[in-house]
Amino acid sequence: MPEAGTREFRGKPAAPGLATGTLVFLDEATNRQAETSDAAPGSPDEEARRLREAIAASGEDLTALMSSLDEQSAGIIEFQIAMLEDDVLVEPALASIGAGQGAGVAWRGALDEQIADYEAAEDEYFRARSADLRDLRDRVLRHLGGGLQAQAILGGVVLAGRDVTPSRFLETDWSRGGGLALRQGSPSSHVAMLARARGVPMVVGLGDIELSDESEVLLDGDSGLLIVDPDAGARAAFAERQEAARNTRESEDEFRSKPAVTRDGTPVSVMINVADPDELDALDPSHCDGIGLVRSEFLFHGAGGLPDEERQYLAYRRILTWAAGKPVIIRTLDAGGDKPIAGLTAPDESNPFLGLRGLRLSLARPEVFRVQLRALGRVALQGNLKIMLPMVTRPEEIAQAKRLYAEALASLRAEGTDCAEAPLGMMVEVPAAAIAPELFGEAAFFSVGSNDLTQYVTAAGRDIAAVADLNDTLHPAVLKLIRSLVEGAAAMGREVSLCGDAGGEPAQIPALLRCGLRSLSVAPRALGRTKATIATTDLGDADG
Amino acid sequence: MPEAGTREFRGKPAAPGLATGTLVFLDEATNRQAETSDAAPGSPDEEARRLREAIAASGEDLTALMSSLDEQSAGIIEFQIAMLEDDVLVEPALASIGAGQGAGVAWRGALDEQIADYEAAEDEYFRARSADLRDLRDRVLRHLGGGLQAQAILGGVVLAGRDVTPSRFLETDWSRGGGLALRQGSPSSHVAMLARARGVPMVVGLGDIELSDESEVLLDGDSGLLIVDPDAGARAAFAERQEAARNTRESEDEFRSKPAVTRDGTPVSVMINVADPDELDALDPSHCDGIGLVRSEFLFHGAGGLPDEERQYLAYRRILTWAAGKPVIIRTLDAGGDKPIAGLTAPDESNPFLGLRGLRLSLARPEVFRVQLRALGRVALQGNLKIMLPMVTRPEEIAQAKRLYAEALASLRAEGTDCAEAPLGMMVEVPAAAIAPELFGEAAFFSVGSNDLTQYVTAAGRDIAAVADLNDTLHPAVLKLIRSLVEGAAAMGREVSLCGDAGGEPAQIPALLRCGLRSLSVAPRALGRTKATIATTDLGDADG
Repeated sequence: MPEAGTREFRGKPAAPGLATGTLVFLDEATNRQAETSDAAPGSPDEEARRLREAIAASGEDLTALMSSLDEQSAGIIEFQIAMLEDDVLVEPALASIGAGQGAGVAWRGALDEQIADYEAAEDEYFRARSADLRDLRDRVLRHLGGGLQAQAILGGVVLAGRDVTPSRFLETDWSRGGGLALRQGSPSSHVAMLARARGVPMVVGLGDIELSDESEVLLDGDSGLLIVDPDAGARAAFAERQEAARNTRESEDEFRSKPAVTRDGTPVSVMINVADPDELDALDPSHCDGIGLVRSEFLFHGAGGLPDEERQYLAYRRILTWAAGKPVIIRTLDAGGDKPIAGLTAPDESNPFLGLRGLRLSLARPEVFRVQLRALGRVALQGNLKIMLPMVTRPEEIAQAKRLYAEALASLRAEGTDCAEAPLGMMVEVPAAAIAPELFGEAAFFSVGSNDLTQYVTAAGRDIAAVADLNDTLHPAVLKLIRSLVEGAAAMGREVSLCGDAGGEPAQIPALLRCGLRSLSVAPRALGRTKATIATTDLGDADG
Repeated sequence: MPEAGTREFRGKPAAPGLATGTLVFLDEATNRQAETSDAAPGSPDEEARRLREAIAASGEDLTALMSSLDEQSAGIIEFQIAMLEDDVLVEPALASIGAGQGAGVAWRGALDEQIADYEAAEDEYFRARSADLRDLRDRVLRHLGGGLQAQAILGGVVLAGRDVTPSRFLETDWSRGGGLALRQGSPSSHVAMLARARGVPMVVGLGDIELSDESEVLLDGDSGLLIVDPDAGARAAFAERQEAARNTRESEDEFRSKPAVTRDGTPVSVMINVADPDELDALDPSHCDGIGLVRSEFLFHGAGGLPDEERQYLAYRRILTWAAGKPVIIRTLDAGGDKPIAGLTAPDESNPFLGLRGLRLSLARPEVFRVQLRALGRVALQGNLKIMLPMVTRPEEIAQAKRLYAEALASLRAEGTDCAEAPLGMMVEVPAAAIAPELFGEAAFFSVGSNDLTQYVTAAGRDIAAVADLNDTLHPAVLKLIRSLVEGAAAMGREVSLCGDAGGEPAQIPALLRCGLRSLSVAPRALGRTKATIATTDLGDADG
């Protein structure tokens, strides 16, 4: 074959960033394995037992895997565990076994049918879940085939294939770089969410292109481009872009350690959002003005059921110790919506984002809430703690939470346990709270949850691809509402921060500052770019 | 047995009103019938064929039933059709047939298992759906038993039983009065929704009380009370309350024919909402100031797929003819959310209320929207037509709808078909539109959709029982937002009406008028009580 030179293939960007490396194909060996293992099936009873054991073993795998993951990844695996237990998958497989098939062939047939249904769905979100079903299919098949393990992937390469499953992504070592180039796949898939969170460039929808294993490739996750066998010119241009991106990162690194100030001299407080205390180990507390949001949900995932008071206390203490006196805002459990927790959240709400979630759920389950309030009461002695209530809709809810908090403190004191009272503030994410902050004078502080506020104000779900363009924090009505909230809070003498994703997005930060916000809380990885963006923003006369 | 005198049983009110009559128990004969018919099952293939035929026949029943119903009832039956086709019901039954069971026993077993799951759900909404599953169970069993029909119910009696299915409710003649007294049941059930819409008093949750068929009873759907074998005193007190209710109705009837004016002399325009043109036959157009909302969804239910231009034109013309020159606001298709339409709406959105619905769906399916816009262009010559767009979130959407409307008019003119341009206004139900009406200057008028606006502003779904107390149009933030919308619209020179359920609720009307609203559009049955409530409302200084 002659030196064909650079070939470019265009797909859809699914996770930003630039990667170079060798292309490695993901094989589908696991399926072949399963077919041969079924060559001589046992009796229906035996095969049904084998299938149930393989499903149980897969569930144990996933539970074990979950315990080592951050909240987002654990949530994805939890979704898989829930699916694995769904009769829709198991019943048809058992029916086929009853008709004489082996466990492997029966499971594969049942799953392939479901996968085809998902792939044919009109809704992008559902199509994107087909990779999870393939993941479950292959995991159970591996157990049926006697525990064959997935091909080990070392990382530092560009993985290519039809699609990739969440398990495969989580089993890969991404610390050495690399990326994902997929013929199908979806920007809404669980893997794409993980890739964005971990900074792994990813391109999907490349179609039926011809690729050779071990080709050299350049992968552009910003624009959705895969360049195969690049010539010197293409390599040089790509290297230049990587260099520019590195410079941006370095400039962000430089800003990271300094206080944030706008170009025209207004200081802005920048805190971090913590979804998992493990993240803190790699972070320097002097680089932020505190922790604007601890998502306490991390304690409620993983095996072992709801966390007891001691486990909560130790986790919170570790965070307060890290912060060394800077403010730490711990949000009480914000389950429900897109964050189901087994045994706690309502399983089948028609519209979970409009359901029993956040504080509503805590007030409906006071025996669970009380444990968290007691742990918070004890840990308040260990640092500069503030407590934040999610999804507040009516002032009566704060009053009710305050009563439960006072009872928790009284019970600790009655037992002779040391405790202290921390200020109780609230998220502003339900539009009612943003529209009429004057009703919520009982809250000690406000923090805008821009993700939820945006989805309610625009009535556009943040997980529904078909309305993604309407779900926009820069919608003038969202900004008008935030500005009026900032003014209302100032009149009440209450501080307002913002702890949604918008606070860490360079395209949205200037508009938020021009609404009058002077405090943002962002994901740790967005700290540098947030401060760098603030430094290039002029508030001028636009500021209220 | 001695004359025990009056016995009172307390349940939960599910539909208001007072009924007297004879108690009639609903029997469960259909199930016994099905068991005997399975005494000697055929081969698995035969039984599977029998089951599939019975399911298909049940689906045909339901489709036929649906075509004679109003929108709300049709939606409930549509929900049942969707469930009937769900593999979760069919697969386990087929598996049991494979294991040698007869079709009836297999179907009953599969359905009873699902019914038990639904009844054990934590969520009230799901528990309430178990009656639909029993309905499907019994309907298919009837077909398996050779077409045995349900016991005919003449109406004018108080039906008693464990629960009642939507089919049974719809097959009963309620024109002669009567009510429902259930041992179990739920105020969130489909039957309760129907009972409220038809004015049939209903009490649920009476528990395991002892009742005799053909007892005389008094049923109080306002307070949830069932009085059995009432003595003379109880009868007289009940008759007095019925008389008072009748007087209220008569006073409402008296107000119905007059223009609406507040006690201190401010005129209020009161229009009607039309969900089904058949309703108009019983109404006098001189009793209202026009039609504030035609829900064009009625055309998209029923058999026969999406309605063609001629069918739409004729339906709209009938409504405009009835209105005889008074304004008629036809809303373009508002599908999605809680109003699925087969072949049109996205089937599996995570949060349908935040999904592709209303105008969003029409813009995503211009080939469907165009048919409606052409029919509206033609019918604009036949009366005082205004067109209203639902779920507007961004001004660009109105611009896009206007372009499609202009194209539809141009294509009609090019064909030599007579047409005219009607004013294009919008629903204000997405909070973004209420917060910043100044963005929507392209709209010729505004109409507040208080049901959706309330559920978004409070982030509390209107079909989720667990958050029902948060879903409140009287929430001060909702009222503040409506008041600011009225002021904003006045500054823009735009009229604002309100066409949600709140406009017809005596407890909510005074607050809405005090927000500055001077135009309400209500269900036809609420016309009298709305005008009566307006007549007793003083705006005084509270008015803006």
